[in-house]
Amino acid sequence: MGQGLPDPEEFSFFMLNKVRIVLIHTSHPGNIGAAARAMKNMGLSQLYLVAPKQYPDDKAVWRAASALDLLENAIVCDSLEVATQGCHLVVGTSARDRSIPWPVMDVRQAAETIAAEPDEHKIAILFGREDRGLTNQELQQCQFHLQIPTNAEYSSLNLGAAVQVVCYELRVAALAKSQLNNAWDWGTEWDVEAATNEEIQRFFKHLEETLVELKVINPKNPRQLMTRLKRLYLRSRPDQVEINLLRGILTATQKLVQSDK
Amino acid sequence: MGQGLPDPEEFSFFMLNKVRIVLIHTSHPGNIGAAARAMKNMGLSQLYLVAPKQYPDDKAVWRAASALDLLENAIVCDSLEVATQGCHLVVGTSARDRSIPWPVMDVRQAAETIAAEPDEHKIAILFGREDRGLTNQELQQCQFHLQIPTNAEYSSLNLGAAVQVVCYELRVAALAKSQLNNAWDWGTEWDVEAATNEEIQRFFKHLEETLVELKVINPKNPRQLMTRLKRLYLRSRPDQVEINLLRGILTATQKLVQSDK
Repeated sequence: MGQGLPDPEEFSFFMLNKVRIVLIHTSHPGNIGAAARAMKNMGLSQLYLVAPKQYPDDKAVWRAASALDLLENAIVCDSLEVATQGCHLVVGTSARDRSIPWPVMDVRQAAETIAAEPDEHKIAILFGREDRGLTNQELQQCQFHLQIPTNAEYSSLNLGAAVQVVCYELRVAALAKSQLNNAWDWGTEWDVEAATNEEIQRFFKHLEETLVELKVINPKNPRQLMTRLKRLYLRSRPDQVEINLLRGILTATQKLVQSDK
Repeated sequence: MGQGLPDPEEFSFFMLNKVRIVLIHTSHPGNIGAAARAMKNMGLSQLYLVAPKQYPDDKAVWRAASALDLLENAIVCDSLEVATQGCHLVVGTSARDRSIPWPVMDVRQAAETIAAEPDEHKIAILFGREDRGLTNQELQQCQFHLQIPTNAEYSSLNLGAAVQVVCYELRVAALAKSQLNNAWDWGTEWDVEAATNEEIQRFFKHLEETLVELKVINPKNPRQLMTRLKRLYLRSRPDQVEINLLRGILTATQKLVQSDK
């Protein structure tokens, strides 16, 4: 590499270090250890545990093997909001088809998409409970869902194995990126910073309030309205100016509702 | 599919079913169970165990979960020769560089190579001991070695995790071969038809009218507001229900503006 250019290996590690692996309500501590080991083997480091059932635990330590440092540095928290704070892209892993379809990528596409994100973006990948995966509410906070292709006759991967496949694809994508002139890195050409997950969630709250005031939503029978709107806006990955603009429209609408009373 | 062509699903299973996963001198029975589960999740079925240290064992059963049939049908034998009998291609998994260089492929190349083998070929993939991998003698029985890219600081994958990554790449290669790839075309799985360009343009007109009435847009100095909103909505490629929903909100807002006058 010429002087002044980043070392490709360092560069790929940088990308892997900004991806958070978020395990939600994990039942078996062994799976937490296995996830930590899978992450470190592939060069990831940011482990978040949302309300694990049984943790800390010797089984986690045993299965983590030489990835004990990842367990020690893991952030244990109570809510998904804390685990995804400051993230620009939130991806949910999902085995099932949902009643309302959401944008879905296979794990390889998802890894390539993540590798193409601007350097300053933080990314969270959510893994649900061993038995039931992610709830609809959790899945609806995600820009897109990630699926691992599986045998239809037995599609339920072990949690540690799922983390392994995802981290493996991230590493392969990071290595490919460090060897390429990232031609389709649209992120760097954008004029405004992407909105963070918190900004988007606050907008959703504001939107729902306004639609209730407008009587577009009946709180006693909200139907699928907010879900459809969330899907629409998450798909477009709004930037900060866009979010401010949308909230400005909501505020103007709310003033009108007030004056009408 | 036209008459006489094989069913693509069946075809890919056929390829996966002719690959033997051979675990040599495995120490921990839990890893045998994890390997069986990883195999079945990815559609493989042929498990060979060469002189396992502790088997059968409850830990193998527990970790296999619903892949118990693979354990029950596993062939336990004393020597590698029995496990690879009748095979046309034997591949060794190896983390280390050896003193005598051998042809090496990364796991993706190896999976593509295996997928390209003639139908009648049987293939064995060898996985070594948890602590020391395959011996030189075992590695030298292989046509080529397979490596999984790992973090140089911690390169030793758990045995079950290594089997998971290899079987995952085999499944992806099998699906690509059977051209089932376009199953991932999420567009076709969407619940609602995409909005046409005219529908979107009518929505934009409606949106602009409403924002002028709301006094969010000053028609004498509209700035970049509509441009930014158009970019936002176009990016998300709205479907027809979403467009109707958005126009419903605009109509409710307009009614309010009228009643306020």
